[in-house]
Parts: sequence; structure tokens; C-alpha cells
Amino acid sequence: MTTKVFLTEEEMPRSWYNLAADLPSPPLPPLGPDGNPITPDMLAPVFPMNLIEQEVSTERWIDIPVGILEMLHRWRPSPLHRAVHLEKALGTPAKIYFKNESLSPAGSHKPNTAVAQAWYNKEFGIKRLTTETGAGQWGSALSFACSLLGMECKVFMVRISFDQKPFRKVMMQTWGGECVASPSSETNIGREILEKMPDTPGSLGIAISEAVEAAVSDESGQTRYSLGSVLNHVMLHQTIIGQEAKMQLAKFGEKKVDSVIACAGGGSNFAGLAFPFVNDKINGADIDIIPVEPASCPTLTRAPYAYDHGDVARMTPLLAMYSLGHGFIPPAIHAGGLRYHGMSPLVSQTVAEGLCNPRSINQLECYKAAVTFARTEGIIPAPETSHAIAAVIQEAEKAREEGVEKTILFGFSGHGLMDLKGYQLYFANELKDHELSEEDLIASLESIKDLPQIPHR
Amino acid sequence: MTTKVFLTEEEMPRSWYNLAADLPSPPLPPLGPDGNPITPDMLAPVFPMNLIEQEVSTERWIDIPVGILEMLHRWRPSPLHRAVHLEKALGTPAKIYFKNESLSPAGSHKPNTAVAQAWYNKEFGIKRLTTETGAGQWGSALSFACSLLGMECKVFMVRISFDQKPFRKVMMQTWGGECVASPSSETNIGREILEKMPDTPGSLGIAISEAVEAAVSDESGQTRYSLGSVLNHVMLHQTIIGQEAKMQLAKFGEKKVDSVIACAGGGSNFAGLAFPFVNDKINGADIDIIPVEPASCPTLTRAPYAYDHGDVARMTPLLAMYSLGHGFIPPAIHAGGLRYHGMSPLVSQTVAEGLCNPRSINQLECYKAAVTFARTEGIIPAPETSHAIAAVIQEAEKAREEGVEKTILFGFSGHGLMDLKGYQLYFANELKDHELSEEDLIASLESIKDLPQIPHR
Repeated sequence: MTTKVFLTEEEMPRSWYNLAADLPSPPLPPLGPDGNPITPDMLAPVFPMNLIEQEVSTERWIDIPVGILEMLHRWRPSPLHRAVHLEKALGTPAKIYFKNESLSPAGSHKPNTAVAQAWYNKEFGIKRLTTETGAGQWGSALSFACSLLGMECKVFMVRISFDQKPFRKVMMQTWGGECVASPSSETNIGREILEKMPDTPGSLGIAISEAVEAAVSDESGQTRYSLGSVLNHVMLHQTIIGQEAKMQLAKFGEKKVDSVIACAGGGSNFAGLAFPFVNDKINGADIDIIPVEPASCPTLTRAPYAYDHGDVARMTPLLAMYSLGHGFIPPAIHAGGLRYHGMSPLVSQTVAEGLCNPRSINQLECYKAAVTFARTEGIIPAPETSHAIAAVIQEAEKAREEGVEKTILFGFSGHGLMDLKGYQLYFANELKDHELSEEDLIASLESIKDLPQIPHR
Repeated sequence: MTTKVFLTEEEMPRSWYNLAADLPSPPLPPLGPDGNPITPDMLAPVFPMNLIEQEVSTERWIDIPVGILEMLHRWRPSPLHRAVHLEKALGTPAKIYFKNESLSPAGSHKPNTAVAQAWYNKEFGIKRLTTETGAGQWGSALSFACSLLGMECKVFMVRISFDQKPFRKVMMQTWGGECVASPSSETNIGREILEKMPDTPGSLGIAISEAVEAAVSDESGQTRYSLGSVLNHVMLHQTIIGQEAKMQLAKFGEKKVDSVIACAGGGSNFAGLAFPFVNDKINGADIDIIPVEPASCPTLTRAPYAYDHGDVARMTPLLAMYSLGHGFIPPAIHAGGLRYHGMSPLVSQTVAEGLCNPRSINQLECYKAAVTFARTEGIIPAPETSHAIAAVIQEAEKAREEGVEKTILFGFSGHGLMDLKGYQLYFANELKDHELSEEDLIASLESIKDLPQIPHR
């Protein structure tokens, strides 16, 4: 039996799918410091205008330029596998498919948008990109993309990760990227924080602030900032994942999928797989679409839908999203890519409008699921990906108990070869769960209570 | 332009190619301690009889059992890429193709034989495999394969690597493999060595001895030993690589290949890609076939063709091969998979018979080539693979100087994501070359001078 389906390069999608065109209500605009919607030109010092246009576009299909398609062809289309060995181990009547994004040179789905963003910046005359990275996946992917296009890349990496994961820096360096620990002495905000807190482990919020400052303060005008998740154009670039998966399910002979499952941190992996299926759901299909997040950082499952900043230092515009509060510091769980206080506004809206059913799962259950997957399907999952796998196992076991045959599709967003520390601690019984307490949640939400409210619609 | 060609699962080779059937002279038999050829039943405590039969077979084509094909399908066929971006960076008229074996779950070509060996052992009623590993690639691959078949796997890992690369152990553990540092207190030979040299860093020779002892001393008869390179059946299992590459070159429209290049440690990666082309050469094709090895461990380029043991403790039979002497301790270069004193007898014979032109290259040139490759083609090579890339660059630059258009194929045997320490030291200018001195070579060859000689043919 065939358990893996490729597509040819010719079959690859030629357009990105923009969910903003099909959502029941129009997306809510980002707001500036004065509470008024921000205009495209206000973003011009930070992003190139061609990406700003994509950010606000409501066109349903946006053509992928040939230059970007050629870069994607280096590793795409990615295969869709049927997880027959996992099915067998679970004794489930469910059919489980996974879209394997771990085969990109950086090991995850992140390069899909990295090559697109770098390409648009280069088209616009930009020579240098700045960004932040937490666990290191995004900094690696952007360094890779810049390398292919002969651009410079500067990555501010949260200090604690920088110290704990020295090889992520080496990866970026191999692709010619420059990676510094954040807070750094290279920006005003970095120096200010280092003076007050010389021993701070850093945070994604601080790193974002430094990367934005480094971009806008380059007087040559040849530097811009790049973000690996959250924003609309990032979600857009990832939609090739779900489009390919649909074609591949058809080649497997599947006429219908019952559940679509992916992990969600900033939202781009989830959006990439799920948005083409959200469209089907808007058009009447009966699909259970499940973004999965850590119980320790339960943005979609326990936070309010509110306007909030994307960063701790409140330098970014206010975004309409589920948010635990920009001051929220998630515990040090090993799925670094899921440790974010907010969520993509487009993903947030699908939840607010009842199109998706988010779920949170604790870390230990996720590692257990990851090990089951590695020992049956043979691929070691990233800690982020293990959240999707844990939810798949829950669904497959439910199907077994109910005796229902169903078709489950999930996103295998990345491999775990750069994240084996978490597995090591798991096997040594040194990991624990960190469920967010009600008191801590209430305390964290203090930081957003004076911000503008989302209008009732 | 298409730069990547897949095959369908249906197009995958259904047989392994056995070069022993086509070599100008018959392969020389391994010899026992008494200098007489060893018989298959003498190997029975170490290997299952179905693999021993393959080891001595001279059939040209050996069918791949369906059960093994299904395991290979999990990640195969592997793509063949054209390295247009590397070509452009080098300004060469040469066309460069690479066969990408880095997409297997363990990250290298090693699983091709690991799944085959585990499957044959299971067919034969074996429940548990033992092996040794140096850098960790092979121990990971065999743990992966055993995991898929529900077998136990015990890996003796050279202590210095065990201590330096803790994540390789975690990889094996994730697949259910048990990995201990060698010398260990679990075998007689291990205990003996630990008593004499409690602080020894270990060696591949010691680890082989421990793994063989652990296999043959299991009185249940359900344990066997497994080797990741050198032996004929291992070369055989890798020949799907070259067979696929041939079909893919045809799909690219190439009628002829001028150079075939791969790195060679024990020889399995080289044999896998090159043996189907060696067959063409035997039949008259004009192909330059180049195994590439480190200048610090120049087995094929500077050692004699002689009978020698495969391990330091002289527990293995005598094999007819190029050997630096079983007592040779290669310097601690970072391409751990190429640090072996001997070479596959089949690969050795192709060199002895003038079918291949081996080349040795120093470590620093290889890292430079690896970084050039990563920044053009986007994939970070394993340190072993970088040896092939360095030779490809030499050939491509020669083609540029001579103004000759030629077609080069090389083996991209694995990615370097588990080996970034070497890159880190390279960027910090902390690596150096270790060319083997004439005195050291002569001293090392002392250990083989009293062994039986290869008959003149």
C-alpha cells in the first residue's frame, strides 16, 4: 500500500489563498497608539510596501511570483503521508494523514514565508533584514532565505535560548546570518534594558523591539524588519501547505476529511494547513478544525479576544487577537515556538467566529505522543509538532471508542533534531506540566484592561 | 527550470545490484585466524544465515523483499537535484547533480541498510541486535530500523563521542534503542580494558569487540550483531541510491555522466552511489569514479592493499582491503564517519583493479566547500559529505579552466544538523588539518606485516 504521495513541481499551487476574502466579517484593522486604525504608510519604515499591500489585501487569490516558486521548488512540494503504523499501534478505525513540512533545509514550515518575505524585500531594493527568534527556528529559516538571495540577515535571539542552544546560532552563521543575544548592546532599547537588568534572560518581546529598532534606525533606508508569524501576509504564504494537502488527499482517494489538526503558537503553521479547509467549512463542509496550544500558554482556549500589543515593550500596533496580555511570560516549556502571549488576528477571528475549535494540552502528554509517533512512523517530531500529534491521538482514540471510521489530517510542522534536549529531560523524568492558574491569568490580563475594546459585531 | 526530480514508488528499483558478479576477478574470501578462508557457518553466531548468504553471493541482482521495500518507501525514493546555484557561484560550465540522502528520518543514507538488516534478522527469528557507533549516525539508523520492526537494539558508542554528543544518545533512545559508552562494564572485553585504562576515550575497534561479544554471548540465540559498512551485504543494500540516480539523470535528459563522486569511510555511501556506474565502466563507459577520503585517514590513497582485521582487538576475520593497519588511530577530525583504518573489500577491489580514482582532501578545504554549498544550494552538509563536495568543486573549477562542459554526479550522503560543533570550530578558526606523516604511516603498518599476503593475480 502506498503510504506517501508527492506532487510534481507542475502540480504545485501557483497562488496563495487569502482567508480575509472569505471570512464572515471583515478583519479588524490594527490600531495605532491613538486608537485609530493605522494606515499602510505608517508601516513603511518597518516593512516594504509590496508586503504591506499583501498585509491589507482582501483578494482571495494572490499569485506567487515565479522567483518565489523557484525557491520553494528546492524542497517543495512536500509529501503527504498516511500514518498506517500509528493507526495500527492505536488500534483505531481512523485514517490518519500528515503533511510533512520537516524536509525543508531548515527543518520546518518556516522557510515557506522566509523565502517569500526575503524575495519581496529584495524586489523593493532592500539589502538587509532584521528579525528576532526565540527557539531559533525562524532565525534559521530567514538566514537560509537571505543566503539564497544574497541578502544580509541580522537575528536578535532571546538570550536564554542563545545560551542554551549554541548550535542554532551556528546554523544561522553557516547560512551567513549574524545572530546576537538579546538584549544586546547594539540598540537603544537593548542598552537601556541591560543597564537596568544586566542578568535578564531576555524575552521575545525585547527581541522584537530590538529588531524593529535596528531596522528603522538604518538611515540608508536599505534595512527592513521581518516577522515569522502572526501577521496576515505570513499566514498567506503558508497556505500552500493546505492547498497541496488537499490535492494529495484526493490522490489518496479521500473525498472528505473530518478533522484538521495543527499546533498554533503565533498561528502560521496552523493557518497554512487549515485556512484552505476553513474556506470549505465556510462553504458548508462539516470539518472539525483544531488548533492545538500548550496548557501553559492557553491563548485561544482561555484568553479574551481583545486588542493588544504584539510585544512586551508595546512598540507594535494593537492587534485584534486572543491575548494573555503582552506582559505574560510563559513558563519555560520546550515547545519554544508556542510560547507567545498572542495569536495571529486571522486565526483569532476564525476562533471568534466559531470556525475552529481550539484545544490545549499539557507538555508531558505531548512528549508521550511524540515518542509514540517516533517509534511507529519513524520521524522525531519537534516539540511544537508534538502538540498536534497529542490531539490526533485523542481523536483517534475517541474514534476507536465510538467505533467510527473518520479521516484525520494533521500538520507535521518540523523535526525535533535540533530540540533533543527536551526529549532528554523527558526520558530523565525531569519535565513537568505547568497549567496556568486562574490567579496568574487574571494578573496577566491587567496589562490589557485599559486598551481599546473590540467592537461588538 | 526544474532542478529536482523525484521518482514514484512504482519506479523504485526492486533489486539490489551486486558488483561481485561483474568484477574482473572474483572477490577474495575473508580468512580465519589460521589463514584459511572462513566458511559461512563460522559466521553463524554473529550474523543470521540469510545475510551470510548475501555476503557471499555472486548473483548479479538480488530481489528486495516487499517488507523491506515498504520500509524504504517511508522516505524513498530520494530526490536528485541539479545544483544550479553552486554551478553559478563557481562560474563553471559543468553540470552538477546531487543525490540527496539527507531526507531519511535519521538524516543520512545509513537507514537503507539498517532496515534491510533488521528485517532479515527478524525473518530469521532474531529479537535483538547489537552494534557499535562512532559519530552516532549508524547507531541512530539501526535504532530507527529496530523501532519500526519492534526489535531491541543495543548500541556501544565510543566513549569520547558519547560524552561529546549527548544528543545522538537521545535520538537512539527516542527510537527505543539503548546506548552505552564503550568500553562498558557489560562485556568481558570492556571490563578488561576499563581495568587497565579507566580513562580511555574508547575506539571503534573496542566498540566493535564489545558489540560482537554481546551478540555471541547471548545464550538464548536471539541476538545477532549488525555492521553499518565495510561488508558486502551492506554495500549491496545501498545500491538503490545509484540505481535511482541513473533513472533520474535520464529524466533530466542526461545521456552520459562524466564523473561520479562520493565520500568513503567504510565504503557504503560510495558503493551505494557508484557501483551501478562501475558496472557501466566495466562495460566500456568512460566515467571517472572518485571515492574521497580525509587526508588524515588516507586509506585508499596511501595504504597498501593487504589482509587485515576490521577491529583493533583482532576479533574479526581478515579482510582483503586497503588498510592503514588495525592499530591506526585517526586524528580527531570532525568527519567521524570517515575515521576508519580499513575499507570495504569490494570498494578496495575496484581501486586495486583501476576502476576508481581515489582522492584525499584536507579538513579545512572540506569545511570551506560545505559552507559554499550551504550558502548556494541551501542544505547544510554532514562533515563526511563535505569531502565529496570539495572534490566536486575541484572538478568543476578544472572544467572552468579547461572550458569543458561535463556532467558531475555526487552523493549528498547526509545533513549536518547533528554535527554543527565542527562548523562552530571552523568559524572560530579552531580547526586544523592533520596530514598523515610518512613516519606515522610506516609505524602504523607494522601491525599488518606478519599477516597473510594478498596473492598476486
